[in-house]
Amino acid sequence: MKVFAGNSNRHLAEAICNYLNVPLGRASVRRFADQEIFVEIQENVRGEDVFLVQPTSFPTNDHLMELLIMIDAMRRSSARRITAVLPYFGYARQDRRASGRTPISAKLVANLITEAGADRVLTLDLHAGQIQGFFDIPTDNLYALPILTRDIKANYDIGNVMVVSPDVGGVVRARALAKRLDCLLAIVDKRRDRPGESEVMNVIGDVSGKDCLLIDDIVDSGGTLCNAADALLARGAASVTAYITHGVLSGGAVTRVANSQLKELVITDSIQPTTAVLSAPNIRVITTAGLIGEAINRTSQEESVSSLFD
Amino acid sequence: MKVFAGNSNRHLAEAICNYLNVPLGRASVRRFADQEIFVEIQENVRGEDVFLVQPTSFPTNDHLMELLIMIDAMRRSSARRITAVLPYFGYARQDRRASGRTPISAKLVANLITEAGADRVLTLDLHAGQIQGFFDIPTDNLYALPILTRDIKANYDIGNVMVVSPDVGGVVRARALAKRLDCLLAIVDKRRDRPGESEVMNVIGDVSGKDCLLIDDIVDSGGTLCNAADALLARGAASVTAYITHGVLSGGAVTRVANSQLKELVITDSIQPTTAVLSAPNIRVITTAGLIGEAINRTSQEESVSSLFD
Ligand SMILES: Nc1ncnc2c1ncn2[C@@H]1O[C@H](COP(=O)(O)O)[C@@H](O)[C@H]1O
Ligand SMILES: Nc1ncnc2c1ncn2[C@@H]1O[C@H](COP(=O)(O)O)[C@@H](O)[C@H]1O
Repeated sequence: MKVFAGNSNRHLAEAICNYLNVPLGRASVRRFADQEIFVEIQENVRGEDVFLVQPTSFPTNDHLMELLIMIDAMRRSSARRITAVLPYFGYARQDRRASGRTPISAKLVANLITEAGADRVLTLDLHAGQIQGFFDIPTDNLYALPILTRDIKANYDIGNVMVVSPDVGGVVRARALAKRLDCLLAIVDKRRDRPGESEVMNVIGDVSGKDCLLIDDIVDSGGTLCNAADALLARGAASVTAYITHGVLSGGAVTRVANSQLKELVITDSIQPTTAVLSAPNIRVITTAGLIGEAINRTSQEESVSSLFD
Repeated sequence: MKVFAGNSNRHLAEAICNYLNVPLGRASVRRFADQEIFVEIQENVRGEDVFLVQPTSFPTNDHLMELLIMIDAMRRSSARRITAVLPYFGYARQDRRASGRTPISAKLVANLITEAGADRVLTLDLHAGQIQGFFDIPTDNLYALPILTRDIKANYDIGNVMVVSPDVGGVVRARALAKRLDCLLAIVDKRRDRPGESEVMNVIGDVSGKDCLLIDDIVDSGGTLCNAADALLARGAASVTAYITHGVLSGGAVTRVANSQLKELVITDSIQPTTAVLSAPNIRVITTAGLIGEAINRTSQEESVSSLFD
């Protein structure tokens, strides 16, 4: 088994290799003067079981092309099997037609990865489980839940915790965590009664005195989380922390979170944190290297990864 | 027939529509906050013969993804036939394996365009004719030669012109122009005898007193052209002008050309010229809109485009 990485999350790739006790495969993924990507695999991969660690986070198009070109280079170098490891799957939110004449970019991306020559795909907390169905090649989707649960148990008195979904769309995900922690569930229900009117935050469930844990898969602008924190504290919550798998954190999100009433935003390293994220006072990053490393280990030994969810 | 454009060369797309006397199709090709591309086709395309004008110039990965996502949106909107119009085909120079474990990115890109759902491809002065063979769908590759020839005849005394290939790789292309103009051909032969030694410019052919026209498909850094101009003038050439189809002009290329001994660099609008290019003292842009417009017209009428090369 050999693990390679593009440029989107070399820290995570190195941590995965550390877990697996293998060196990171040598590959040069650079740019020509016109910024076209050039890839050269610098060690023999003939007959190898190859894993390419490359979340397609910002800049998504560049990171996706790096992945596709690396797959092409691996295939032409006679790798036996190529697994694309995408801890963050870009374009996942474009997983259905939003309106009339729009694309389904998540399906397009699935087709591109397959067409380039991937044999398997390994993902983490996919935005929608349906995206696995966009692939005809085998897929495994890992859950960050066990990692998040461990961190929560180490930091909170579970007896006083309330899991909160920041919107109705995330209730199923939040419920899975609440069940696992054996604690109560509340929901923030954002509603705009008429177009142009400002949104009203309703909280379903009694959060007074509780340590609220907002749970979701993606934090992008951070607006939803910060507004939910305000609403929960206004209803008497003791504290509000957010546990979110993928820290997209576009635009002014880091500043918004830093200036918010959130006690802490806990994200994973599925997307390589920027220095701004790492130096934010109330953002903490926990690693998925062990989880992904173990999944790679089992995949290469033709074992199931499902027990990783216990 | 309907013509749409992504963001890579809207000027050319509008000029093509002007030639065809049709309005540019309404489509929104924008970015989400995390810079993922979002496409919405804003008019009915059901049953239509659709042409997407989108050279995959810098930033190539973004422009390629715009094209692929637009194709996906068009296909899902029941367009009858989708022709991808790529006046400049990014990644064309990665058309064979440069060394051991490298990709063939031009072939990958051909597969991606096909997989997204294009029915035909229309290109201009492809870096290598072989790239047409990378596609299993019909392709037409237009030549800029008739446009360049017209411009040369309007500006030069053909009796005193010498066509020059800036390197041995471009001799076939240069010879086609020399034959068409019925004038002589010279070659600049760049040679490095030992690694580390500086390159020596040999000129094959007597250029003294001649108006030299350097001809090639791509100008990237501009270094080759500027050095060739020096070598030709040192051998007594009267003037040196370059006619190059695709103005990639990476890095400091525009400044390099402006400070060079080149009388003029003439490029086409296959790549949308930047303001730096447009304000350079010795760079001139000629349009391919009529050529491409006529090819679109004939394609939509199921006529051959080959007579466009006369
Ligand atoms: N990169 C993106 N950033 C923000 N919104 C997106 C993005 N991609 C898709 N969307 C939109 O997000 C919505 C889907 O989100 P969700 O309901 O959470 O699955 C759709 O309306 C999409 O148009
Ligand atoms: N975008 C690019 N910029 C510069 N060189 C490239 C680019 N893409 C490919 N190449 C290299 O250009 C060479 C092919 O150029 P040519 O011999 O003119 O076809 C190969 O060695 C490629 O590695």
